[in-house]
Amino acid sequence: MALLSKNKIKYIRSLELKKHRKEENVFIAEGPKLVNDLLGHFKCKTILCTQQWFQKHPNVQADEILAVTEDELSRSSLLKTPQSVLAIFEQPRRNVDSSVLKKSLCLALDDIQDPGNLGTIIRVADWFGIEHIFCSLGTVDVYNPKTVQATMGALARVQVHYISLSQLIASAENVPVYGTFLDGENMYNEKLTQNGLIVMGNEGNGIGEEIERLINRKLYIPNYPPTRETSESLNVAVATSIVCAEFRRQASLR
Amino acid sequence: MALLSKNKIKYIRSLELKKHRKEENVFIAEGPKLVNDLLGHFKCKTILCTQQWFQKHPNVQADEILAVTEDELSRSSLLKTPQSVLAIFEQPRRNVDSSVLKKSLCLALDDIQDPGNLGTIIRVADWFGIEHIFCSLGTVDVYNPKTVQATMGALARVQVHYISLSQLIASAENVPVYGTFLDGENMYNEKLTQNGLIVMGNEGNGIGEEIERLINRKLYIPNYPPTRETSESLNVAVATSIVCAEFRRQASLR
Repeated sequence: MALLSKNKIKYIRSLELKKHRKEENVFIAEGPKLVNDLLGHFKCKTILCTQQWFQKHPNVQADEILAVTEDELSRSSLLKTPQSVLAIFEQPRRNVDSSVLKKSLCLALDDIQDPGNLGTIIRVADWFGIEHIFCSLGTVDVYNPKTVQATMGALARVQVHYISLSQLIASAENVPVYGTFLDGENMYNEKLTQNGLIVMGNEGNGIGEEIERLINRKLYIPNYPPTRETSESLNVAVATSIVCAEFRRQASLR
Repeated sequence: MALLSKNKIKYIRSLELKKHRKEENVFIAEGPKLVNDLLGHFKCKTILCTQQWFQKHPNVQADEILAVTEDELSRSSLLKTPQSVLAIFEQPRRNVDSSVLKKSLCLALDDIQDPGNLGTIIRVADWFGIEHIFCSLGTVDVYNPKTVQATMGALARVQVHYISLSQLIASAENVPVYGTFLDGENMYNEKLTQNGLIVMGNEGNGIGEEIERLINRKLYIPNYPPTRETSESLNVAVATSIVCAEFRRQASLR
């Protein structure tokens, strides 16, 4: 095991910025649970860990393993409370085409901005067996450390792709494209398919006009009771979860 | 209109801490949408606003209205990007007893720690017409500025009470008490009542043992497909929303 240099600390901290993560083609994950969940799914370049963690994981595979004190870990960590291990993983290269929309249910995110929301949505997708998320090019980076942490390991089982959503939809013929709108149809009255795309919109502005035109099934999550004054909308991760739950409830009835 | 003193700035910033909010019996809300939603529902003690905001709201009711520059607002604001108005509201005093559990569906939160989760749950409750949330004494403060902001105004329509959950449940006889557990019954197979209490647990540890013993209907949110490896759990605000949506879907079928 090697020791931790000042340059290494500087390098790790630089990965808080998307620009540096992109240049280096890596991302950071912290904490024993998350790191364990991702090991084996992503190529691990560097592990920074306490002696205690290493003793519990003597066979861990990484290009470089650095034994550090709690104090050194603190100086490298992006978390308020560092947790015994920090790993640098390689960003995977994945190819996917629109045929997955014919075969399975996928999510599309139109300019989601909040890293926590993106992470929570990945965790929701994992719960409901949605294995591909397509993000518009304006969506927050999936390798933002706050997103990675919020996935709680679901990133190991859900593939996230960045793509022009209009091109994606254009290349997928005869595929149902769903989105939630205040003037959509009550989703409980609709027969929801188990393939296609569910589009979720930006936190403040919802789904953009260009994408809205490509949506062929507009859904509404009914509030209750219908006549009571209520909030204008739901948080986007919450809305995603309610919609995905209903798709899968209907699937289970068949 | 009065001008802004250094002491006032110091006072406002002190309200970031629960201790000071409690001593002063107040809370802060920021931004035109949120402040507008809360005005009329909570007694407003102080408004800090730009001239522009004031010109649009000449009849605003508050004990004190301070015209400030954008720069002065920045120095008082708890937000990264201040938004033309900051209000200090009085914390309401509300009495409630367990009879609301017989008449309506309520939520109980057992030591929720994240202020954003609590705010999102309040917004979910509002959407689904749940007007009372009972928080264990260890739950994060509802008047935490991050919680208030995350409610997006739903705080105007949902009452949040701090109470010993075991005492609350003990005082409510013959009331269904629900909670979500990994070994609960698939919630889609259950006939869900439209009164009673839905208990949601802490982010890391779930529902505490003491409260678990008081739960008489254990529910499970089924993952999909059931045999696929997935995350160990859902985010608590997400789980709350999926459960509440199902209660209300069933209510609407009747």
